[in-house]
Amino acid sequence: MVTATVWNEFRHEREDDAVREQYPDGIHEAIAEFLSDHGFDTRTATLDEPEHGLTEEVLAETDVLLWWGHAAHDEVSEEIVDRVQERVLDGMGLIVLHSAHYSKVFKRLMGTSCSLKWREAGERERLWAVEPSHPITDGIDEYIELPEAEMYGERFDVPAPETLVFSSWFEGGNVFRSGCCYRRGSGKVFYFRPGHETYPIYRQPEIQRVIGNAVEWAAPSEGPDPAYGERDPLEPLD
Amino acid sequence: MVTATVWNEFRHEREDDAVREQYPDGIHEAIAEFLSDHGFDTRTATLDEPEHGLTEEVLAETDVLLWWGHAAHDEVSEEIVDRVQERVLDGMGLIVLHSAHYSKVFKRLMGTSCSLKWREAGERERLWAVEPSHPITDGIDEYIELPEAEMYGERFDVPAPETLVFSSWFEGGNVFRSGCCYRRGSGKVFYFRPGHETYPIYRQPEIQRVIGNAVEWAAPSEGPDPAYGERDPLEPLD
Amino acid sequence: MVTATVWNEFRHEREDDAVREQYPDGIHEAIAEFLSDHGFDTRTATLDEPEHGLTEEVLAETDVLLWWGHAAHDEVSEEIVDRVQERVLDGMGLIVLHSAHYSKVFKRLMGTSCSLKWREAGERERLWAVEPSHPITDGIDEYIELPEAEMYGERFDVPAPETLVFSSWFEGGNVFRSGCCYRRGSGKVFYFRPGHETYPIYRQPEIQRVIGNAVEWAAPSEGPDPAYGERDPLEPLD
Amino acid sequence: MVTATVWNEFRHEREDDAVREQYPDGIHEAIAEFLSDHGFDTRTATLDEPEHGLTEEVLAETDVLLWWGHAAHDEVSEEIVDRVQERVLDGMGLIVLHSAHYSKVFKRLMGTSCSLKWREAGERERLWAVEPSHPITDGIDEYIELPEAEMYGERFDVPAPETLVFSSWFEGGNVFRSGCCYRRGSGKVFYFRPGHETYPIYRQPEIQRVIGNAVEWAAPSEGPDPAYGERDPLEPLD
Repeated sequence: MVTATVWNEFRHEREDDAVREQYPDGIHEAIAEFLSDHGFDTRTATLDEPEHGLTEEVLAETDVLLWWGHAAHDEVSEEIVDRVQERVLDGMGLIVLHSAHYSKVFKRLMGTSCSLKWREAGERERLWAVEPSHPITDGIDEYIELPEAEMYGERFDVPAPETLVFSSWFEGGNVFRSGCCYRRGSGKVFYFRPGHETYPIYRQPEIQRVIGNAVEWAAPSEGPDPAYGERDPLEPLD
Repeated sequence: MVTATVWNEFRHEREDDAVREQYPDGIHEAIAEFLSDHGFDTRTATLDEPEHGLTEEVLAETDVLLWWGHAAHDEVSEEIVDRVQERVLDGMGLIVLHSAHYSKVFKRLMGTSCSLKWREAGERERLWAVEPSHPITDGIDEYIELPEAEMYGERFDVPAPETLVFSSWFEGGNVFRSGCCYRRGSGKVFYFRPGHETYPIYRQPEIQRVIGNAVEWAAPSEGPDPAYGERDPLEPLD
Repeated sequence: MVTATVWNEFRHEREDDAVREQYPDGIHEAIAEFLSDHGFDTRTATLDEPEHGLTEEVLAETDVLLWWGHAAHDEVSEEIVDRVQERVLDGMGLIVLHSAHYSKVFKRLMGTSCSLKWREAGERERLWAVEPSHPITDGIDEYIELPEAEMYGERFDVPAPETLVFSSWFEGGNVFRSGCCYRRGSGKVFYFRPGHETYPIYRQPEIQRVIGNAVEWAAPSEGPDPAYGERDPLEPLD
Repeated sequence: MVTATVWNEFRHEREDDAVREQYPDGIHEAIAEFLSDHGFDTRTATLDEPEHGLTEEVLAETDVLLWWGHAAHDEVSEEIVDRVQERVLDGMGLIVLHSAHYSKVFKRLMGTSCSLKWREAGERERLWAVEPSHPITDGIDEYIELPEAEMYGERFDVPAPETLVFSSWFEGGNVFRSGCCYRRGSGKVFYFRPGHETYPIYRQPEIQRVIGNAVEWAAPSEGPDPAYGERDPLEPLD
């Protein structure tokens, strides 16, 4: 059984009435709930817990970590970023949601600024599935429509995804690579654009389905455990 | 339950004593046997059956097709190549084994000559797993050693694989991209180099494991069924 | 000096007044003209010439072939398709324009159906440059706007491009991977979506610039000439 | 004219007789010399200069930075790593040589550990060109042979290269992805394995040619300068 840990800043929901109304127990609980329904063993962790809730033990037991951050990226300690990066390289999956494109963890794993264009105007978004053979699209139609979304637009400063799964159209004239798969070390990383602290995007069944599919895809496989450092020859040398 | 159909020319085994000794019932039966043990619903098809054993019905019921060919590539009819290609684009997985790099089916899906260097000298091969996060490497060590193998060497004239899973070292001084993943349409394709009509490579447990993993990876997912052709606008035009 | 050969069906321009008005000497002449201005040695070839104008000699002298086709893809002979494919694998660049996504030559090199959605409604298109480090974007702004375009929409049934350079937004709600780089054999292939037989898209300076950049990018380099077939060992075998 | 700056720790050559004998003026001078012969405007910078020789001004004037480090990676300040990363994202090319796989700069841009296997036994290496259409292979034969090399072996913990140009065979039984192209921001990165502080590898003409080709490939192009942050809609919203 796959263990998914949902991490959240959990600040907006305590400080802003509009956010609290949408996600009274925090966005992490909303995500954890639908992932539990999907059949995962689900936990949560938040910024203001000791070690941001991400102790060595928690990470060791986590197969896939989901990351939501927005306003407090800078408050995440370098030590925890190091720890999460190391655990991803060791095989843990990572799902980076919406504004977490700017999280330290994602920037660390990408090596780029992860900048983009944005606009908060409640415009329509349509995510087109461009790679129908990818398991992250299981059960999804040709596109997912979001009636009201924050716009994220290209140029998105990330390395080209190893697989581009979704490409977004926005009412205001922009496009975005909104479902991006990467491998880092023995771990898999999926960036998924949709989400917002006030639009009810994580209530939408197709979005929940994609995130569930992504957890399954990103769960560690049982591949070789690479050894590094000095090594004797496997064949006789001249 | 995944249905795997193993296709074989089935000529060598009937015409050549050395091959028959290694694979008395045909190489397809040897592969089908270990895939059955792996838990797949397994069938076989051969060149000399009507429609090469690949009727519309057989292909419709096949989730993953495995292809072994060596000496009679030219005898495969264009009609069946068309049919297999169409079924791959429609979602069927395809595992292309060893000398099937030169099959019409693989060349059709790659768009290149699929040429390579080769040498039959019973030399040692070591397949290094270069992408430990890929499920095709599940249960595999850092490398697989084949005591005696036919050499295939670069330049291998294929499009760069979307994921390179294995890279081979050969005693005689060559290297080869020996585990290559592709997506074509809604289908997945895996080329896997090892195999031979007289060396007992398909008796080796790690090789059987990789092929089993590849069948699982290549099995169709439940993604969208793309629609093509003329389409009305989804948004009002000026 | 790079030699570019522009191939065109040259049917529309002779049969349809609206097309003739836009491109009186044929769309190939319009493209050849701006490529000459760009500094290339430019030639043309058309469907109704002997061997479609693509003799062995012409292809041998061509560094980069540009392909425009729309209504007569089926009339291109298999022999010439074989010849063009072989020449691409041997190093010739290929630029595939707009409706040539459905040409035999492109389908042959991709291995897929190359199908897509389309609509002819004169809607607005915006091509976003998503890979600013790619030389095909030299001299281009963040996006190119086409006031009136035929829509091409995803799912575009091609292998994932090795580099995705442009991604299109359409007024009617669709997106499209509209600048796609591939390598096939020793040759490079660029698919570029814009173009039309009646909208004056090839008169637009940014479009001309992209096509010129693409010719430079696709021109053959001086890499190794791979040898194939049986080879002696380079190292002593046990 | 392309400006190439060669960076070196320049410690070995001052502390170790064997290294000084091979590279009396430092390995950076040896590299700068053949790059000058290749036609580039060439400079050098070293660890013990103020700001490691990489002032804002030097980097602003540098089109392509070459990086050699081995024993003192930790002494490179985070501030200079930040500065180099930012300049790469802004368009500067970066060539990472041999043991610089472990430099802070490369690890920062890759997001992974960049670990590998190694062995110093003077064994034979053969770098096979696997992508003959890539300009980095210009003027190179099918393989480059190094009579005596330090072994670097897989698993090499980097993101899969966007283009794999060279794949190495080692006498002792290992393989390595030894020529790896990446894009990061508006900049291009090339990792090239060969090199050593005592084997005369940078005296070998083919190696010099590859490095020269890489500088040309990595030189900035004139693509768009992406804008980030909040943006007004380009189209009217409902």
